[in-house]
Amino acid sequence: MDGKSNFRNKNYSEGIPYATIKRMPIYYRFLGDLANKEVERVSSRELAVKMGINPSQLRQDLSYFGSFGQQGYGYRVNELLQEISRILGLNQPLNMVLIGAGHLGTALANYENFGRRGFVITAIFDNNPAKIGDFVSGILIHDIKELRQYLQSNLVDVGIIATPAEFAQEAANQLIEEGVKGIWNFAPVSLKTPEEVIVENVHISESLLLLSFKLQQKRLP
Amino acid sequence: MDGKSNFRNKNYSEGIPYATIKRMPIYYRFLGDLANKEVERVSSRELAVKMGINPSQLRQDLSYFGSFGQQGYGYRVNELLQEISRILGLNQPLNMVLIGAGHLGTALANYENFGRRGFVITAIFDNNPAKIGDFVSGILIHDIKELRQYLQSNLVDVGIIATPAEFAQEAANQLIEEGVKGIWNFAPVSLKTPEEVIVENVHISESLLLLSFKLQQKRLP
Repeated sequence: MDGKSNFRNKNYSEGIPYATIKRMPIYYRFLGDLANKEVERVSSRELAVKMGINPSQLRQDLSYFGSFGQQGYGYRVNELLQEISRILGLNQPLNMVLIGAGHLGTALANYENFGRRGFVITAIFDNNPAKIGDFVSGILIHDIKELRQYLQSNLVDVGIIATPAEFAQEAANQLIEEGVKGIWNFAPVSLKTPEEVIVENVHISESLLLLSFKLQQKRLP
Repeated sequence: MDGKSNFRNKNYSEGIPYATIKRMPIYYRFLGDLANKEVERVSSRELAVKMGINPSQLRQDLSYFGSFGQQGYGYRVNELLQEISRILGLNQPLNMVLIGAGHLGTALANYENFGRRGFVITAIFDNNPAKIGDFVSGILIHDIKELRQYLQSNLVDVGIIATPAEFAQEAANQLIEEGVKGIWNFAPVSLKTPEEVIVENVHISESLLLLSFKLQQKRLP
């Protein structure tokens, strides 16, 4: 910790409500927007209104991480953004491998914002001989058979699973057995993983089914 | 309602915990897997274990929608799958338009499972002259300038927003002004929408930031 930082260096997630944790990326996004517009300071009220939450909720959220801002002055946008980046772990790069070079995998590999935030995809893996050896966004597609060896010789923090459902668990198993601690899963399956591995799921279809459900509700008398 | 159905035709979402609603797509997925394997019946215990929830939670969830299954026999997989499909609104097709033919939009347009479930993308819109007139997965890419007119002459239930952040609100405004009631938003913005419009967000980057946060937590002493 450097001397300037005023947040407590502790395991935040203990004792912090999950709702607060889930809002951290949203604070990050809104503060990033303000920083891009070269806004220098923001009151908790303004920021809360933008985010559609209560100002006291915002102050409560940030209080879990230390004391930010000053009464009557508000927050310095750049300072708060930096602190939140640090809280989110964005001060050190995350090395990622992508498994599955289909349409979704390709979209993820092409996502420009990752690099800016220190998320780097170092290799892609697929089982389709027609794709192996190609590049997506400058990243080589390897044979999935080389995954284990790659993980053994490279530091990988996160495995992105963008395979069809039936290959996802096997991909997860290999990642876990080779020591990868984070899995970002896009396959429509519930992965079986040991407790120490962190899994974030993006279940795209489930989101559409929820939308369908809610629309259906509106149609009913 | 046909005579066979035993679920109550009411507005489910009133009084039903959101956690239950969010599990419906997961029941749908697990029951679909069982049906694909031609499993005929399943006990609440088996299904709950597969889903990693409590059997009593499962029975409670389903009780909101009517009485399913029989003591000591369990659920008929196909029957329960049908009922849940109906609850999710999958018995009538949803017409969707896709705005944004970038990598993510292309991935969505190519997603094969949509069609099987009655989700149909009828048109794609983009502002890139190089893309307009092309087809993705057999669907024509129109000029975004034609969006309003298209919405006026076609029944559209859902607008999928897969544009960069800065175009998302304008796309949403046009959809809403032309009467679209559902928005499936992939742009990293919080859309301003009237209450009667249902928005489901898939904030892909936020999911990665959460993963980063949790990994960061593990690294701290």
